[in-house]
Amino acid sequence: MGTSDTRGTRERLIDSTRELLWERGYVGTSPKAIQERAAAGQGSMYHHFHGKPDLALAAIGRSAEELRARAEAGFSGPGTVTERITGYLRREREVLKGCPVGRLTQDPDVMADPELRRPVEETFAWLTGRLAALLTEGRASGEFGGGLDPAATATALVAVVQGGYVLARASGSAEVFGRAVDGALGLLAAHSR
Amino acid sequence: MGTSDTRGTRERLIDSTRELLWERGYVGTSPKAIQERAAAGQGSMYHHFHGKPDLALAAIGRSAEELRARAEAGFSGPGTVTERITGYLRREREVLKGCPVGRLTQDPDVMADPELRRPVEETFAWLTGRLAALLTEGRASGEFGGGLDPAATATALVAVVQGGYVLARASGSAEVFGRAVDGALGLLAAHSR
Repeated sequence: MGTSDTRGTRERLIDSTRELLWERGYVGTSPKAIQERAAAGQGSMYHHFHGKPDLALAAIGRSAEELRARAEAGFSGPGTVTERITGYLRREREVLKGCPVGRLTQDPDVMADPELRRPVEETFAWLTGRLAALLTEGRASGEFGGGLDPAATATALVAVVQGGYVLARASGSAEVFGRAVDGALGLLAAHSR
Repeated sequence: MGTSDTRGTRERLIDSTRELLWERGYVGTSPKAIQERAAAGQGSMYHHFHGKPDLALAAIGRSAEELRARAEAGFSGPGTVTERITGYLRREREVLKGCPVGRLTQDPDVMADPELRRPVEETFAWLTGRLAALLTEGRASGEFGGGLDPAATATALVAVVQGGYVLARASGSAEVFGRAVDGALGLLAAHSR
């Protein structure tokens, strides 16, 4: 087996674990199911990972990384703060599947393990901090009025996205996610000068 | 067994199912676990319910009813619309356990069953409609400016609560829920005249 095959197997194992965590949760994801989906043998799995917790940590870390990269691409792009936040909130998402990071908070086994919970916590702390920095920038430049509280507003915006996923799943329709985002942007607009 | 005992058993079965759905999800909740927690025999369980789906439906219906009753108590109370919405958003919640209705949206077995999903969908539709009616009332009375979109804003407020639960669980602290609510109220205040 060459180096590229080995790397391919490792990536397939991570991708399969991400999919299974998303579809079935931690407790419903067996090492056997991961191996089957990745078309990898047991020996190959244990060559790359110590076991299911180690694989789950790699999978969650990868989901968190991608979430950050996608968000940062919007945040550091061109435009006013409102335009960049609008772009972030309105970008395409697989709304009905739920947030690959946020839905882990409803997985009791992930939340009970401090190592698995850490990347989830860090992702939302980063996201909230990044939005708060943008809102602070917008307040300093006069785009928003002085009454806007960057930290609380940033937390509310992250909550709208996470709650938007919940409402979309409840109604079986992505439309309600867009309505929650519209509502948040309408409220933010009231702070614009 | 007298009528009051029979009623007591039925209630205990519903309560136990609610607790187990909350703690372990649908797939992790066995009829045996429900019977054990309710201190009820198998015959007694099947006297009151056809089986696990029937019990789950009663349990979810009860959680939905309680959510509506608690919310309505705040919505129909005294005070301005802003005061009533503030009371609703700030009332005490077991934040770290998650919303007993909202977290069902992350339970694949509940979402896959139209009968079990219906009370979840109806609860959020009712809640959003009720908040939209309040916001419309506040706009008509001049409490809010004409730029406020009641339906979108109501959806955003429900999303903030649901997302607040997600962020609180991610950080293992109820504080972030309060910050999300503060952010939402700050944005709403910008619409006040």
